[in-house]
Amino acid sequence: MNHLLRIQCSDRVGLVYQITGILSNHSLNITEMREFVDNDANQFFTRISCEGTLVDESALYHELKQHLPEGAIITINPKKEKKIVVMVTKEYHCLGDTLVRHFFNSLGAKVCGVIGNYADLGEFTEKFDIPFHHISHLEKSKEQFEAEVIQVIEGYEPDYVILAKFMRILSPEFNSRFPERIINIHHSFLPAFIGASPYRRAFERGVKLIGATAHFVTNDLDEGPIIEQQTIPVNHTFGVTEMVTSGKEIEKAVLSRAMQLVFEDRVFITGNKTVVFE
Amino acid sequence: MNHLLRIQCSDRVGLVYQITGILSNHSLNITEMREFVDNDANQFFTRISCEGTLVDESALYHELKQHLPEGAIITINPKKEKKIVVMVTKEYHCLGDTLVRHFFNSLGAKVCGVIGNYADLGEFTEKFDIPFHHISHLEKSKEQFEAEVIQVIEGYEPDYVILAKFMRILSPEFNSRFPERIINIHHSFLPAFIGASPYRRAFERGVKLIGATAHFVTNDLDEGPIIEQQTIPVNHTFGVTEMVTSGKEIEKAVLSRAMQLVFEDRVFITGNKTVVFE
Amino acid sequence: MNHLLRIQCSDRVGLVYQITGILSNHSLNITEMREFVDNDANQFFTRISCEGTLVDESALYHELKQHLPEGAIITINPKKEKKIVVMVTKEYHCLGDTLVRHFFNSLGAKVCGVIGNYADLGEFTEKFDIPFHHISHLEKSKEQFEAEVIQVIEGYEPDYVILAKFMRILSPEFNSRFPERIINIHHSFLPAFIGASPYRRAFERGVKLIGATAHFVTNDLDEGPIIEQQTIPVNHTFGVTEMVTSGKEIEKAVLSRAMQLVFEDRVFITGNKTVVFE
Amino acid sequence: MNHLLRIQCSDRVGLVYQITGILSNHSLNITEMREFVDNDANQFFTRISCEGTLVDESALYHELKQHLPEGAIITINPKKEKKIVVMVTKEYHCLGDTLVRHFFNSLGAKVCGVIGNYADLGEFTEKFDIPFHHISHLEKSKEQFEAEVIQVIEGYEPDYVILAKFMRILSPEFNSRFPERIINIHHSFLPAFIGASPYRRAFERGVKLIGATAHFVTNDLDEGPIIEQQTIPVNHTFGVTEMVTSGKEIEKAVLSRAMQLVFEDRVFITGNKTVVFE
Repeated sequence: MNHLLRIQCSDRVGLVYQITGILSNHSLNITEMREFVDNDANQFFTRISCEGTLVDESALYHELKQHLPEGAIITINPKKEKKIVVMVTKEYHCLGDTLVRHFFNSLGAKVCGVIGNYADLGEFTEKFDIPFHHISHLEKSKEQFEAEVIQVIEGYEPDYVILAKFMRILSPEFNSRFPERIINIHHSFLPAFIGASPYRRAFERGVKLIGATAHFVTNDLDEGPIIEQQTIPVNHTFGVTEMVTSGKEIEKAVLSRAMQLVFEDRVFITGNKTVVFE
Repeated sequence: MNHLLRIQCSDRVGLVYQITGILSNHSLNITEMREFVDNDANQFFTRISCEGTLVDESALYHELKQHLPEGAIITINPKKEKKIVVMVTKEYHCLGDTLVRHFFNSLGAKVCGVIGNYADLGEFTEKFDIPFHHISHLEKSKEQFEAEVIQVIEGYEPDYVILAKFMRILSPEFNSRFPERIINIHHSFLPAFIGASPYRRAFERGVKLIGATAHFVTNDLDEGPIIEQQTIPVNHTFGVTEMVTSGKEIEKAVLSRAMQLVFEDRVFITGNKTVVFE
Repeated sequence: MNHLLRIQCSDRVGLVYQITGILSNHSLNITEMREFVDNDANQFFTRISCEGTLVDESALYHELKQHLPEGAIITINPKKEKKIVVMVTKEYHCLGDTLVRHFFNSLGAKVCGVIGNYADLGEFTEKFDIPFHHISHLEKSKEQFEAEVIQVIEGYEPDYVILAKFMRILSPEFNSRFPERIINIHHSFLPAFIGASPYRRAFERGVKLIGATAHFVTNDLDEGPIIEQQTIPVNHTFGVTEMVTSGKEIEKAVLSRAMQLVFEDRVFITGNKTVVFE
Repeated sequence: MNHLLRIQCSDRVGLVYQITGILSNHSLNITEMREFVDNDANQFFTRISCEGTLVDESALYHELKQHLPEGAIITINPKKEKKIVVMVTKEYHCLGDTLVRHFFNSLGAKVCGVIGNYADLGEFTEKFDIPFHHISHLEKSKEQFEAEVIQVIEGYEPDYVILAKFMRILSPEFNSRFPERIINIHHSFLPAFIGASPYRRAFERGVKLIGATAHFVTNDLDEGPIIEQQTIPVNHTFGVTEMVTSGKEIEKAVLSRAMQLVFEDRVFITGNKTVVFE
């Protein structure tokens, strides 16, 4: 049997020895181990794959809890298939990639439902027998809109909410309801072109590369911990339209990669950054 | 005989036909031709390599001048070896790469002299029999410092001034003295981390890539037309020091590439952007 | 009205002048022009976008034909939406990407049908209301199998046949029936790991990058003109399985890019190479 | 005090626990730890940075030796500055980069001497006060040539021999004299274009990317364990000359990166592959 263990705690001398000793006592053999110390935050992070017959998971948890620094966050065998809700506006590329992977069981998560503030992507979503919720933001207050969205999301009890080119700004109240659980794809290499219309601004600035950033959403718009970023070259022949078209490829790739990393429990959050054990 | 022709002018119908006709009249055969129209600025750009016996370069110039839109900038056979002055502070990597290429005649430019606001790179520079001017910025006004620098530069009558990790901010007065002739390497993927300490700020923001930007210097610091940009991935294990070390490789590569493009007359400036015929 | 013109012919002095002159006579204004001379083959290639009212397309064709070197291949306004047949085996990623783009009208081609030598991808294909033809290769000769495939393909009269991870080797007879019209995605950076099991061989060789290649299919397996190639880094932690998984992302991206370039008429074939006006 | 520990041994259950326990007994605190198991070869690899007062290095070595599997290769605090001899022919770019880093103390190795089978790079080398040995291969047998080279190399007792674009094929006898200690830069993305004239063959094949590979040299030419590889895009406008020019940039970068990894003791060899703890 394979097991996965994640620990985040304050750093101190001898942690690896202690943890590996406890695993050894439980007859678990380490097959892969990653660790990192964020010295600025004095935080220790580890992700351990091991194999063996784990007789008593609860006992292992409590033994670790007892010996590790107070406040340690310990996860043993996090659930393999995460549940997600995807939010979209009109652009199909990130949703399309996600639903195709989902259909062929390679997303690493179950898509419970899709919420669109426009109806455009409904027909496509329903081809895959996934509920599509059209919740328009028009003619209602932001509070009202978000209340409706929250109701749908909470009905699914998802692990993560994926903003797959959802083009409305969500309120701090909304975001704080799902802390460290909302993942957004931003269409620039943040912190460049933070905010609206990044491709237009990239065009106007005359940059020679464009990019995409997947990040956790916090109260500060586009300021949350970055999970993954990539760039691709552009040149003077690219107008805004060409940048948008090329950018879609990289947005799709970056969001997909970020979801994979998160769903495989490879990502830790430390302050406003991430530790990613690729 | 090979010839190189560069034209920048307002766009209108039939320019390519007109230009190629005139070249044909002068018995010049086009071997490579690039053209671009900046529709926003209504500007036409072309770079043409051709071969043949050009009997009267002046006649060709005047015929083009006469038939092309008023204000056309026409360059026939720009000088092959540009003259440059390099300005540095303490970091060696960009200067080192430049002087090695220069020594082996592959820089495409003659390095007339190197100016350092510290003396650190003097010994290295002089190994290559290139004059090193140590002009300290200490204990003098910016005006005084820049006046001394300008005197040295102007003594060489260079085509370009290369800021190869020169870490002082130059005044608008300085910059306007060498319009479109100063090239700077900035250690971030502009417009991200514009200004000072980009690696520290990249580290604090937790980005997953770092970059470098070579650009022409205008009055607005770090806001001039971008010539070349590249990024490389980083991860949570990179502290500021590791970012600086990795960044040097890309700074060197980006500045080197930008210089090559400019020295081969492949770069046009249009507004705050560049057209680069790679 | 926008028009697109493609010309391939033997090179000689003054071609650009001649062509632009003829376009000018037909009141066509060039908006974008690319040209290239393959000196080894003495071949000239151009792709010209122009605008204007083209009164007589046939007259333009004949005037070009008359003035250009004998044997010139001239195409005026190639059809915008190509027709394609996609061939697959069991892997979904390239097909998925293709059908999603098709559904949202951004593929630049009409998918007439999908042929699978296994039935695995039938359900998925039919979600998009595209005919799926399961033609098993089992218990029949290669000739018989290919005859059945050819019958289906020819029924659709497609412009291109896309081998989207079709894992059977096709005979020279099959390939020669669709000259310069079959596009394959090979899962390595050819010519490395030509033939079968490239990821296993990449793993055994201990390479530090893997790649994908889209190419036209000729009689020589994996030896046809390359349209697009990309690589991504791997490291010692990648087993064959991880290489296959990572490789899928790049296979998808490379095939997608190659299709876009071909469908936009940006690709010429010269000998065993391509000229790609990106 | 910081210490570095490298271990390579057969894999078995509990190795990490044992090793970290022994380090703990010696009051060493782990600051960074990497480990990998090559399951095919049943080999365990670890590289551990730790800090603390190591009273008795020899005692630590023997305790590890006693408790780890027989045949374990244990290195405690490998020497920080490696000694190298660089071999060149006529191309300067890799040597130039190496000597500039060396001059500014950022190579991580001491360049004892440079051997050239032509005299071209002598003047450059001697600028940096490094001995240049011109050993011509002309008018003598390969045995004689290599005997002269070996004599010079062995006089310096270097840790590594760097083939920085040394364009002669060395005999198996030569290579076996410096096992796992010769590093070569090959100008292609091996295994593509193994052997001579890779750029010419890349041009003829019409590839859309070129690359470079740094590898340890074994008896089989270009077949040794790969340390680092990178590729860059090319297109139809690249002739052989342009590929050579662009390729130099990547050869320089790849060799430089490989040297850094080896000199920082981040590279292990397992069979014909490397484990690289970047």
